[in-house]
Amino acid sequence: MSNAYTQLEKKFKRIHVLGDAAGMLHWDMASMMPKGGAEARAEQLALMATMGHGLMVESEMADLLDQAEEETGLNVWQSANLREMRRSHTHATALDEDLVEAMSRATSSCEQLWRQARPEGDFKKIVPALKEVLNLSRQKAKAKSEKLSCSLYDALLDQYEPEGKAAEIDPIFTRLEGFLPSFLQEVLEKQQDKSFKKPAGPFALEKQEALGKKFMAALGFDFDHGRLDVSLHPFCGGIPDDVRLTTRYDEADFTSALMGVLHETGHALYERALPKEWRNQPVGTARGMSIHESQSLLVEMQVCRSDAFLTYALPHMKEAFAGAGPEWSLDNFTNLYREVKADYIRVDADEVTYPAHVILRYKLERALIEGDMEVEDIPHSWNEMMQKMLGITPPSDREGCLQDVHWYDGTWGYFPTYTLGAMSAAQLFESALKALPSLDEEIAKGEFGSLFQWLNSNVHGHGSLHSSKELMIKATGKALDPEVFINHLKKRYS
Amino acid sequence: MSNAYTQLEKKFKRIHVLGDAAGMLHWDMASMMPKGGAEARAEQLALMATMGHGLMVESEMADLLDQAEEETGLNVWQSANLREMRRSHTHATALDEDLVEAMSRATSSCEQLWRQARPEGDFKKIVPALKEVLNLSRQKAKAKSEKLSCSLYDALLDQYEPEGKAAEIDPIFTRLEGFLPSFLQEVLEKQQDKSFKKPAGPFALEKQEALGKKFMAALGFDFDHGRLDVSLHPFCGGIPDDVRLTTRYDEADFTSALMGVLHETGHALYERALPKEWRNQPVGTARGMSIHESQSLLVEMQVCRSDAFLTYALPHMKEAFAGAGPEWSLDNFTNLYREVKADYIRVDADEVTYPAHVILRYKLERALIEGDMEVEDIPHSWNEMMQKMLGITPPSDREGCLQDVHWYDGTWGYFPTYTLGAMSAAQLFESALKALPSLDEEIAKGEFGSLFQWLNSNVHGHGSLHSSKELMIKATGKALDPEVFINHLKKRYS
Repeated sequence: MSNAYTQLEKKFKRIHVLGDAAGMLHWDMASMMPKGGAEARAEQLALMATMGHGLMVESEMADLLDQAEEETGLNVWQSANLREMRRSHTHATALDEDLVEAMSRATSSCEQLWRQARPEGDFKKIVPALKEVLNLSRQKAKAKSEKLSCSLYDALLDQYEPEGKAAEIDPIFTRLEGFLPSFLQEVLEKQQDKSFKKPAGPFALEKQEALGKKFMAALGFDFDHGRLDVSLHPFCGGIPDDVRLTTRYDEADFTSALMGVLHETGHALYERALPKEWRNQPVGTARGMSIHESQSLLVEMQVCRSDAFLTYALPHMKEAFAGAGPEWSLDNFTNLYREVKADYIRVDADEVTYPAHVILRYKLERALIEGDMEVEDIPHSWNEMMQKMLGITPPSDREGCLQDVHWYDGTWGYFPTYTLGAMSAAQLFESALKALPSLDEEIAKGEFGSLFQWLNSNVHGHGSLHSSKELMIKATGKALDPEVFINHLKKRYS
Repeated sequence: MSNAYTQLEKKFKRIHVLGDAAGMLHWDMASMMPKGGAEARAEQLALMATMGHGLMVESEMADLLDQAEEETGLNVWQSANLREMRRSHTHATALDEDLVEAMSRATSSCEQLWRQARPEGDFKKIVPALKEVLNLSRQKAKAKSEKLSCSLYDALLDQYEPEGKAAEIDPIFTRLEGFLPSFLQEVLEKQQDKSFKKPAGPFALEKQEALGKKFMAALGFDFDHGRLDVSLHPFCGGIPDDVRLTTRYDEADFTSALMGVLHETGHALYERALPKEWRNQPVGTARGMSIHESQSLLVEMQVCRSDAFLTYALPHMKEAFAGAGPEWSLDNFTNLYREVKADYIRVDADEVTYPAHVILRYKLERALIEGDMEVEDIPHSWNEMMQKMLGITPPSDREGCLQDVHWYDGTWGYFPTYTLGAMSAAQLFESALKALPSLDEEIAKGEFGSLFQWLNSNVHGHGSLHSSKELMIKATGKALDPEVFINHLKKRYS
């Protein structure tokens, strides 16, 4: 056993355990903390982040990484772990302290300003602050691209999608961009023959929670290793052995919160099944944001909006809310859960129009980072692309370029992972269906064991052993292929 | 402004903020965490404790303390802060690493064994493990007594009751010990004329919670800065700006859980009113366990079991549970909340018999630490003293010397703080009544503003500025005086 490598495992374990503790406190902040606890909590989290960063950047770490990379005899997991240690270290040390501090100040003040500017739809108000964030993000991209020997945009993408490359995303998104506008028209026309009606509430929150937990348990969620609570913005937090899901209920409509719970359950089941023997090591963590989103979307979009799942689920829904009448028919629920609509807001978008929202943002943020565009150009370009892809123009920037926090809080390079995730979900599910010929019937009976066994073997259990691309090739026989996603959309919507 | 002192403030702030974060995770562990999260949580807490200890024992800290103690120009708060920094540092550095590790191993295995031995009432089983803990606790007492220049027992007491001295406790406990047996007989005889009947349930848990929160709010608890949840063992956790109380409900009896909530609210209101400008500094924390317990017992015993409070509270109780009939009379509730009974279990004891339980443990643990007694002698001495003070002998060690975890998990020197707290509560409340002549009428109307204003000025707002003794002298005009507590008992029970 190599000495430097062994020391690195110990050091990274500390960093991860400290990060786990901070993760639990983040969950508490969003779901439990009274508002008066905010100031103290911010101090706790800042200190823990500083201490974690301190452990990463101590001079010994760089020496150990250099030494370990010269050592021989590491097995494939250890080698992959070392590779991911190096990646974390590179990202953590690429920026000098002045830039980190300037970025922290700029994003924090820009985000605060955004909270005012968004409801007012006042983009002009935020231009100077966003210019500062963009300027620093360009510097960040430059510093990281030098260390990672990659392009400016890829350096930012790598933070969320390790080894992701714009050059590989471009042809995929170009294919989608070509397909979507006419397909959308076709779907919208076809949809005019269909109608649906939302079941009328009120739906008691306790009953909604009980139903959500019933489906979570059916999917395989173990409540000895996690919880479901409420927060303003639903998320999957906590740690693999103690996953904390949140949702938000609406008394008037149970259908959205329920799908939200199922979405987060997909994230949770991924976390739960990460390789136990690599807990608290970089290689034991989830493989980037696109694969993570693929697991939530596989559950939500591929499984839970399928005919098979709705066949299984509808009787439970009816039982939970004593539902009766035509709006509780399978047909009505199928139409309800497959409504397609060209609309302004990304987070409310259906699976057909969602990619358009993402491609728009990806093209803009790339041009902005690469210096081909400036902040002042955003609203015009946004609206133009929106019109081109979805045939609509936002009535104001509130429904346009001010809707997402990402750019304002410095999260550049994140957007493509949403659609890469949706496409990976379709491709993985297609392979699961091939491997498990009776999967559809199982789902219709509420049996998910063989599906998750397949996902555990082909995705979850690999942690960060492979890149996303390798993972897809191993699991599905090929790299991400837009035709699979396109076929899924065609099959479901046309 | 002194330079070394300023640096110390920064260092202690980090230690405290890290401790705050750990405190929140402790609360989560007791109230929210699913059981499958235990192992990971233990790792998180151990790491945070190690990192906090690391910050305390780094060599620079000792130099800065030495330098700061030579500096001039500190104001009284700063001087007191420095004194408390020194105390923390002394306790943290008094033991060498081998002893710390041996203690950690010994207490952890002894506590686990105790969990088996207690239900079986098998003291013999635990003798070797407890001997090891006692042996190490004696070494700990020796090491700390040398650093603190005090007796062995005082060195352990100082951990929970800073500057507490057995020599000052002895005459107080001796007076109580002389008073209690005959007084108890008197009360028990008098009580034969009284009878009470517990209102019949079931009492829905949501209603119990709502009622508890109503009284908490009336007492001044701010739900923007805290929560009430459920845990197996009720406690007051969290931090001053985000206090997390817990309780445990019983559907068959709301009266105990309610008094438990009020008790923890006393702790909480102390934490909330600690001096805000000294947050995260040693001088800004609560002044030891006896004063902390005095605040919970002042609320529970002095205020909430008083005629005045019950007059105010009973209509709310009746309203909450639609209570009607003779068992919902003020008389019945007064008798119910003042039942005195010579019984075996400390945590279930009333305020008359409680001191006997504590004095017994204090005398035994002191003799054990000072080498005047050995582990094998515990059951016999326990039972003998129990018979002498309460006139009863435990049927087995399960109801005797195996009932409390304290000795088995290494918490030596803690017991006296319970009764010092009860006595301090009586003395502080007597002074509050003198200062606020209409306090009784206010309480009967559910008005607690002037009481807490007095407590804030005289206790809470001082943090750890004074020793407990000085605090009592400043607040009540004299050091702890057993006659005040005795008068309280006489007035209420005879």
